[in-house]
Amino acid sequence: MVGKTGRRPGDPAHTRKTILDAAMQTFVETGFEKASIRKIAGAAKVDPALVHRYFGTKDELFIAALDVPITPSEVLPRVVAGGRAEVGERLVRTFLSIWDSPRGDAGVAILRSAVAHPWIARLLREFVFTRVILPAFTEIGLDDDPLRDRRATLVASQILGLALTRYVLRFEPLASASEAELVAAIGPTLQRYITGDIDA
Amino acid sequence: MVGKTGRRPGDPAHTRKTILDAAMQTFVETGFEKASIRKIAGAAKVDPALVHRYFGTKDELFIAALDVPITPSEVLPRVVAGGRAEVGERLVRTFLSIWDSPRGDAGVAILRSAVAHPWIARLLREFVFTRVILPAFTEIGLDDDPLRDRRATLVASQILGLALTRYVLRFEPLASASEAELVAAIGPTLQRYITGDIDA
Repeated sequence: MVGKTGRRPGDPAHTRKTILDAAMQTFVETGFEKASIRKIAGAAKVDPALVHRYFGTKDELFIAALDVPITPSEVLPRVVAGGRAEVGERLVRTFLSIWDSPRGDAGVAILRSAVAHPWIARLLREFVFTRVILPAFTEIGLDDDPLRDRRATLVASQILGLALTRYVLRFEPLASASEAELVAAIGPTLQRYITGDIDA
Repeated sequence: MVGKTGRRPGDPAHTRKTILDAAMQTFVETGFEKASIRKIAGAAKVDPALVHRYFGTKDELFIAALDVPITPSEVLPRVVAGGRAEVGERLVRTFLSIWDSPRGDAGVAILRSAVAHPWIARLLREFVFTRVILPAFTEIGLDDDPLRDRRATLVASQILGLALTRYVLRFEPLASASEAELVAAIGPTLQRYITGDIDA
């Protein structure tokens, strides 16, 4: 199956690891946008078709390489369904549905990595921005908002601050607050950051 | 000067270091409230009076041991002056006046430590809660608010989220936003968390 790449055809685990390492290295060197499956395959010395076969799309390869606990195709429709109204509330619910689940452990791990390693932080920022936030803003018709990028990073400041205090620092009573309590408290904050008056 | 403690009277740097190590160890073992200058002096095998002479109060010793870039006596009056009105705005301004200054580096360092070490996170939470947040809530008359602790941790989630995205992850355009922009965007969030309707 591996054929013309000539790399240990009997050891898919080794091939998988080689591709993931090459992907991580390529993403770090070039950023998410400029990295291509072809470039990553070149760095791993395998055929691009093999990378596709093992990992699917570039999004999926990125998620596998960094162990990101969310996929844009899962999150986006849930957040934008219903348009601008109550988008803040849906964002809190979607966030909690992932971070309160067993996948939250991967979230904590990647947040720790981002704090320790600036290049991980930059990569994640680019991925989340180009694959989640910009498409979401387009979907709800805020593409041309001159404050769009400020709105996006304000949302990140509150969402990542919630991740930090609830799951990493475990500050009580926030760490054990219910979904209803967090939606009531933080939903309006995110709604205002996305659609409200935030300018000086 | 060191006299009856009998420890290297000629080496104040060594004595200082011994006290700081004993303080850190005692704070970690017992928490901030239960640690006393007497206990710390015992662990350092020096006279309590010497600890006072080198570091002043327990607050000041804590700040020196953990390299915390704020002192409650500096922050508190600025945040509570004026009562409940505009407390959110004053909180953003006070926060930025410290984190945008050279002292912000110590803030970034302690945030990284708290993310990496749960015991540092617990200690800081207790210190900030008992020495800054509770006194501030008392000053502005919110002592008996049944949601007081939830309000306090919501404030922490947004303030630490701002610290994380602006100074550690350096997400643009938030990282280079002006004070006026941050006060306009985040002041109302904190105001609502402290005095507004946040319940489910």
